[in-house]
Amino acid sequence: MSTTTIKVHGMALATCTARVLLCLSEKGLDYELVPVDVAAGAHKQQPYLSLNPFGQIPAFEDGDIKLFESRAISKYLAVKHKDTGTDLLRSGCLKESAIVETWMEVEAHQFNAPMRTLIHQLILGPLRGSVPDEKIVETEVDKLGKVLDVYEQRLSQTKYLAGDFYSMADLYHIPSLFYIMKTPKASVVTGRPCIHAWWNDISSRPATIEVSQGMALDKFLSQKK
Amino acid sequence: MSTTTIKVHGMALATCTARVLLCLSEKGLDYELVPVDVAAGAHKQQPYLSLNPFGQIPAFEDGDIKLFESRAISKYLAVKHKDTGTDLLRSGCLKESAIVETWMEVEAHQFNAPMRTLIHQLILGPLRGSVPDEKIVETEVDKLGKVLDVYEQRLSQTKYLAGDFYSMADLYHIPSLFYIMKTPKASVVTGRPCIHAWWNDISSRPATIEVSQGMALDKFLSQKK
Ligand SMILES: N[C@@H](CCC(=O)N[C@@H](CS)C(=O)NCC(=O)O)C(=O)O
Ligand SMILES: N[C@@H](CCC(=O)N[C@@H](CS)C(=O)NCC(=O)O)C(=O)O
Repeated sequence: MSTTTIKVHGMALATCTARVLLCLSEKGLDYELVPVDVAAGAHKQQPYLSLNPFGQIPAFEDGDIKLFESRAISKYLAVKHKDTGTDLLRSGCLKESAIVETWMEVEAHQFNAPMRTLIHQLILGPLRGSVPDEKIVETEVDKLGKVLDVYEQRLSQTKYLAGDFYSMADLYHIPSLFYIMKTPKASVVTGRPCIHAWWNDISSRPATIEVSQGMALDKFLSQKK
Repeated sequence: MSTTTIKVHGMALATCTARVLLCLSEKGLDYELVPVDVAAGAHKQQPYLSLNPFGQIPAFEDGDIKLFESRAISKYLAVKHKDTGTDLLRSGCLKESAIVETWMEVEAHQFNAPMRTLIHQLILGPLRGSVPDEKIVETEVDKLGKVLDVYEQRLSQTKYLAGDFYSMADLYHIPSLFYIMKTPKASVVTGRPCIHAWWNDISSRPATIEVSQGMALDKFLSQKK
């Protein structure tokens, strides 16, 4: 019997932490969320830097296994617990698993960059009192739109990104889509019928509902007062 | 007996195509490189778009398995041929494989963005007749330098990124490092002793030597004349 407790160092509100929590929830695993005081810069100092030398959240511990990078942590959990909860990587089928990996890479290399800039401009900046730069927002909405046009086409053929099954490829997208839906640029999703239906589906999964309860920015703002 | 031929659609010169070729070479697999006329825009049109809807090279076929995204293709090859050639993913050991994945994600999320911009500024732009933008170059060299400082620390403890074994995490970095070494900014590597020793090691692997023969830009330039 394993007595180690999984530790996730991060903030439930942060998109990359939320990615790992989604994975834990899909697998029905217990864990301890160890808060990192990002506002005080704790992530840029020891002892945190020994958990993630790049000074970003999240970091992760499972016994003597210490990892960082949200997607590497998520994959580790999915491999270790492949027979528990949702089958996120489809490793039993070479072809399916390769297509899951392809759309995981699409998230990282096509979707993530414009989405990350938009979340900074539309959510994180305003939280710190700055105003979105309209020009940057328009450029990134354009870039993201071109990517999402390909998604729309894909999701007109299959129910989820990698096929007719929910997978890690879908999960990876949830945290930032959750936030973009709270902004005037939700139209990038709602303006594309297949993406909108996909979002309605993946955002109503029990794991997504559970994790998104920790992503209530209004609660965060009222704590800050 | 399988009679299918692996097809890689791309250009041996392009970093993302080279990543896949490195993997094929480490595994000792035969393949056909199907040239894509990027200069003529073939990658932005049918029939190529049905291989990669994002209109980028490479794309990949192995029988009825059709993939894109160089890192997803590389992983597929490493999973399918795990017992042939170099063990790139260490899937036999949960802990090692998780650390390999962590440094693969570091490549994608810390190293790739500044490196990609530098290759565009210092190599691809000049090939098309433009002059590097000094300000952009300095900003990206700074960003890359901060990332490489972490690598230097890591490589002072282990011979390769994920441990004392060569893995996919190292391989992913080779194509762009190969090009940066041809520029005045090679100092990002040569100025850091552990990274320099690591580069000397991974660049002298038989697979790297083989694939880098297709990356001779001077040959490309003379063909263009
Ligand atoms: N690629 C990393 C990115 C992590 C990341 O960007 N974390 C953000 C919060 S979502 C962070 O720590 N920001 C603070 C900083 O970079 O200073 C991952 O997926 O874990
Ligand atoms: N994330 C993709 C990137 C592919 C990529 O950027 N390919 C470049 C050549 S290295 C390309 O096709 N450039 C032409 C273009 O984007 O129009 C991968 O790893 O396969």
